[in-house]
Amino acid sequence: MGAKLKTAVLGATGYSGLELTRILVRHPRLEKPLLFGRDSDSGSRTGAAEPQKDLAEVFPALSGNGGYPMEPFSLEKLEQAGVRLLFLATPHELSRRLAPEVVGAGIRVVDLSGAWRVRCEKHREVYGFHDTNADAARQTMESAVYGMPELHAREIATAELVANPGCYATSVILALAPLVRAGLVDRSRGVISDSKSGVSGAGKEATARTHFVSVADNLSAYGVFKHRHLGEMVEQLGLKEDELTFTPHLLPIPRGILSTIYVSLSQATTAAVVERCYRSFYQGRPWVRVFAPPTLPEIQYSLHSNFCDIGFCLADDGRRLVIVSCVDNLLKGAAGQAVQNMNLMYGWGETEGLQ
Amino acid sequence: MGAKLKTAVLGATGYSGLELTRILVRHPRLEKPLLFGRDSDSGSRTGAAEPQKDLAEVFPALSGNGGYPMEPFSLEKLEQAGVRLLFLATPHELSRRLAPEVVGAGIRVVDLSGAWRVRCEKHREVYGFHDTNADAARQTMESAVYGMPELHAREIATAELVANPGCYATSVILALAPLVRAGLVDRSRGVISDSKSGVSGAGKEATARTHFVSVADNLSAYGVFKHRHLGEMVEQLGLKEDELTFTPHLLPIPRGILSTIYVSLSQATTAAVVERCYRSFYQGRPWVRVFAPPTLPEIQYSLHSNFCDIGFCLADDGRRLVIVSCVDNLLKGAAGQAVQNMNLMYGWGETEGLQ
Amino acid sequence: MGAKLKTAVLGATGYSGLELTRILVRHPRLEKPLLFGRDSDSGSRTGAAEPQKDLAEVFPALSGNGGYPMEPFSLEKLEQAGVRLLFLATPHELSRRLAPEVVGAGIRVVDLSGAWRVRCEKHREVYGFHDTNADAARQTMESAVYGMPELHAREIATAELVANPGCYATSVILALAPLVRAGLVDRSRGVISDSKSGVSGAGKEATARTHFVSVADNLSAYGVFKHRHLGEMVEQLGLKEDELTFTPHLLPIPRGILSTIYVSLSQATTAAVVERCYRSFYQGRPWVRVFAPPTLPEIQYSLHSNFCDIGFCLADDGRRLVIVSCVDNLLKGAAGQAVQNMNLMYGWGETEGLQ
Amino acid sequence: MGAKLKTAVLGATGYSGLELTRILVRHPRLEKPLLFGRDSDSGSRTGAAEPQKDLAEVFPALSGNGGYPMEPFSLEKLEQAGVRLLFLATPHELSRRLAPEVVGAGIRVVDLSGAWRVRCEKHREVYGFHDTNADAARQTMESAVYGMPELHAREIATAELVANPGCYATSVILALAPLVRAGLVDRSRGVISDSKSGVSGAGKEATARTHFVSVADNLSAYGVFKHRHLGEMVEQLGLKEDELTFTPHLLPIPRGILSTIYVSLSQATTAAVVERCYRSFYQGRPWVRVFAPPTLPEIQYSLHSNFCDIGFCLADDGRRLVIVSCVDNLLKGAAGQAVQNMNLMYGWGETEGLQ
Repeated sequence: MGAKLKTAVLGATGYSGLELTRILVRHPRLEKPLLFGRDSDSGSRTGAAEPQKDLAEVFPALSGNGGYPMEPFSLEKLEQAGVRLLFLATPHELSRRLAPEVVGAGIRVVDLSGAWRVRCEKHREVYGFHDTNADAARQTMESAVYGMPELHAREIATAELVANPGCYATSVILALAPLVRAGLVDRSRGVISDSKSGVSGAGKEATARTHFVSVADNLSAYGVFKHRHLGEMVEQLGLKEDELTFTPHLLPIPRGILSTIYVSLSQATTAAVVERCYRSFYQGRPWVRVFAPPTLPEIQYSLHSNFCDIGFCLADDGRRLVIVSCVDNLLKGAAGQAVQNMNLMYGWGETEGLQ
Repeated sequence: MGAKLKTAVLGATGYSGLELTRILVRHPRLEKPLLFGRDSDSGSRTGAAEPQKDLAEVFPALSGNGGYPMEPFSLEKLEQAGVRLLFLATPHELSRRLAPEVVGAGIRVVDLSGAWRVRCEKHREVYGFHDTNADAARQTMESAVYGMPELHAREIATAELVANPGCYATSVILALAPLVRAGLVDRSRGVISDSKSGVSGAGKEATARTHFVSVADNLSAYGVFKHRHLGEMVEQLGLKEDELTFTPHLLPIPRGILSTIYVSLSQATTAAVVERCYRSFYQGRPWVRVFAPPTLPEIQYSLHSNFCDIGFCLADDGRRLVIVSCVDNLLKGAAGQAVQNMNLMYGWGETEGLQ
Repeated sequence: MGAKLKTAVLGATGYSGLELTRILVRHPRLEKPLLFGRDSDSGSRTGAAEPQKDLAEVFPALSGNGGYPMEPFSLEKLEQAGVRLLFLATPHELSRRLAPEVVGAGIRVVDLSGAWRVRCEKHREVYGFHDTNADAARQTMESAVYGMPELHAREIATAELVANPGCYATSVILALAPLVRAGLVDRSRGVISDSKSGVSGAGKEATARTHFVSVADNLSAYGVFKHRHLGEMVEQLGLKEDELTFTPHLLPIPRGILSTIYVSLSQATTAAVVERCYRSFYQGRPWVRVFAPPTLPEIQYSLHSNFCDIGFCLADDGRRLVIVSCVDNLLKGAAGQAVQNMNLMYGWGETEGLQ
Repeated sequence: MGAKLKTAVLGATGYSGLELTRILVRHPRLEKPLLFGRDSDSGSRTGAAEPQKDLAEVFPALSGNGGYPMEPFSLEKLEQAGVRLLFLATPHELSRRLAPEVVGAGIRVVDLSGAWRVRCEKHREVYGFHDTNADAARQTMESAVYGMPELHAREIATAELVANPGCYATSVILALAPLVRAGLVDRSRGVISDSKSGVSGAGKEATARTHFVSVADNLSAYGVFKHRHLGEMVEQLGLKEDELTFTPHLLPIPRGILSTIYVSLSQATTAAVVERCYRSFYQGRPWVRVFAPPTLPEIQYSLHSNFCDIGFCLADDGRRLVIVSCVDNLLKGAAGQAVQNMNLMYGWGETEGLQ
């Protein structure tokens, strides 16, 4: 094992940033990462005059492990510290603004936001980006690689900017890609993903919607036909937008996603064929587990792990297929996948630091 | 207001039985109901020698309201007490056995189990009934009325035996019937109901599956393509079995059902047309609330009420429709609907005793 | 039954305000209540120019019951509408400001906030009141009656201003008053209440502390030795401040309070004596249920009811007594008790409208 | 690092057994452990004729990590496989029966049950042991060491049989031992621990009490004055039984314990003195975190870790002290502490395999 890599996290105080930090500090290939909060964490827009804070003050669960000092972010600090890889766990507007200059400075980036995931301008409208330098943005976008290791391992290996997939998108794309690519899906009949997510997926901001009393003993659908992750799903799966119906729901649990996906197969087939399709596609991929029928994944199974679990049930008619896929939205759906991407970017084993 | 009606509940100690009892004791048209536990509640198969027990011992929440004495069940007691209406909150095997003789004795029955809901023998197979008197069973089945007030009010009014609908079935049928009957649904493209239920829907039996640790922080799909309620859904909606895909899920909440339903419309239309279809169908029906877009029902809204809430979202293409419907599985999905049926059977207002 | 009473609610959009509204609209002695949101509900400080809003827009659970129009508050409206009784479900600062003028206008007030509960200035310091008219405040304070029906029924009957007790305080005072008054408690050894509350007790404001992810799968103590309800507890129980240790905790449930209370008895006694003490004290009081050992109340038992449940366990030494008391913080701990107070103020039965 | 140690787990299918297995398979000092289910896991009393089962079938969360084969237990297998250390995650009756013979065969044992924790016969009565060989039991008991590393590290190092502490007991003893030993506690005024535990502490058996609907939205006290862990607490703290009042509660969360502990100090003191007492006692102990006031531990902070977190709040009178301590009942309260004990038994670092 050669010299250790110097990394940094911007946005360590968010839910994904916390998970990421926890993984990075234990990763055998890394030096201790530099941690940056967001300006707003210190209650200031600039952060400049703020005293440094320790991440363990924000998350006392981190106490007693030797300190997680945070500082206000600046590109100079990255350079001075010899940071080679920056994780952006930031709102997409901020990622959109920062990534070009960081990459421009020769520092690789894994961005956990939605800023660089979607190629097609129409699908990106929903984000409402206002790029001040449209040329730079276009160029950055062209160089960005969609960071789903099971689909793009080779491109990720050499990418300067990896756009880490959305949590819902991860559960949907991994469940569908093998079947769609094998031509098993009758796209003309539409594909439906009924997805359910724990509340951490909605972020750390305190709103009426994330208030305990609003969520507990409840279930609600939202963003029907217009969730931001729809664009990356259809792009990655090569579907037309109206071929995929996606309905997210807010579950009364802190974390975890379960997607129940409905497809019509192009011809009647058997469960064995479907299972083989999945197994051959994910052959050698350590972070996807295919369940043999009749076992279906449950949210608990992949919680606190980087696994994406996939199971399915085929109707007697051999045509109607129900797929169930689960991920921990903060790990395989965010921080874990980001580290998996890093591992590929530096030629390390995909499971390093993630077990 | 004339003389008060004498009713009885068999199975008062189950979740539905408890809710039913709570409603009946306050219903202005009723005498205090007779309560029967199940044999198993006293730990005996016959119950004969068991001391009587009070329902408040089983559910201390009932304490202090004057006592809810229970007795072992017998037909003679019903007759002696002048009971005119018996609610069966019993397992379907028991309802299958008891209903013919109770009805034969001239006592009307509302059965909350699945024993008499499904007409087609094939759909009934899943229940595995072993009728000792097949003729009586057939005859009873023929006289049974499916107790969905919004669809069969007239037949319910004169029925001797009302088969109270399943909880999932209530949420699905009420959401689909108006559209299917209006011919708006392209059945050839299939209808999907992705339904999620609180744990009380799984009954009071303590199993590995209902253990708190198995359910909390979790979500799981089960019974894909073969849940018992599928039969009553397709029968009531007039669909072929393979036109309806139904996936139930177990939510980490005590009660409430949300069904997310996917249909393709037979031709592109507008949200206004869909809303009108619902509103005209449920005109004058007090227990269905239609929400105008973009508001969608959430489980909390109908909790502890007898409402079925229905909302929807139509895609820009005017064809893909997502419907969300919610019921409290113990009320509109069980005990509340049973009382609504009773109200119709005796010519009372549908909301009496239910507010 | 004579003419119906005209009431109003200020703060209908809070958790207690909602519960209160639900009770008032069904109360047989009342006209439909006037509802006022708080200014902040309309996103404006004045509210003046805001369009009226319906409470069912804030709480869709209220849909379909005929409308709950809200208006911006003014004293004139109360007078024009002939309101005789105003419920204040407002922050204590606002109650402190409004109550004197409303009472001055001859309108009786039940205040659900902490503004008028505490007589001793020292205990009130924690609220940090800044009375602009100190004289009026003092006078109002003198006329205020602590609205615990089981202790002050007679004074409540004629009160102009009833200070509805705090939710924690209700569970603690009702559990201790009978023993303290009977001289059974060895006050010199201290009394401890370890209390646990659902999140609705913390109010509707979205904060880091009420975020679902902060509360779920968690338990936390807070405000040790300095919770606001401590003052009313010691005043009502006649204890010195350092004789009562009170530790509130935040439970991962939407509603309900359980207090586990530890006292040393002044002399060794039997469970029968303790039970008799409770039963004789609460003889004829419909909203306190005393449980015979070994049954202890649980939060579920009194949920959605106006009951305060009390049970206890006496050590073999006959000295150490553990008392468990439960209330629904939004009902007996707030809105239900407010209605119970109203019933006393107008000479109605204590249970009217509350069953 | 020398040769790796061969270990085994009996009772791998329980909640503690699962956590233990997860830790052991990753522990750098160990060979892959032998896993034994309990007879009842295969639905047979003998287990002899049962096919082997994989632990991943019981807990699909373990899938994809290479298999966790289980076998029916026998002492011969331990010997043949060269097992040096057996973990008993078994009911106490079984541990009581097995430990003497396993230790007799020269295999060291860490027992996670209550079988060998309590020295005083009176305190043990609550377990109702029926030792067939009373002499062997007495001898084994004498050799057993109470496995709390922060109190008995030296004895644990050489112990043949380590009695791993109870989960509640861990949270209470670690919070009190420093103060009691320093003579700061006025024992004559009594010590109270109001403790709250997640449901996994009640074990995996499906009962009415562990049914999701019984636990969710609820809180209940149980076993007041007579919980099994009381004996080990008073023995380890050197208190008389009536000096400690212990009330456990069942929380609606899967795991985690929070104890709120009330003591009177023997003389008025300052928070600094209390904090110093804790810090000096736990100096160099990696698995206890002392929080400086005003921060108090919350259940989430130590969840999924082996930490015991301790914080406190001292009243202005300098006498009344409220201590809050938290552990994950399955880790520091069971499997984690068992591994910590193993580390001491073999001279390894206390944190090995536990981070």
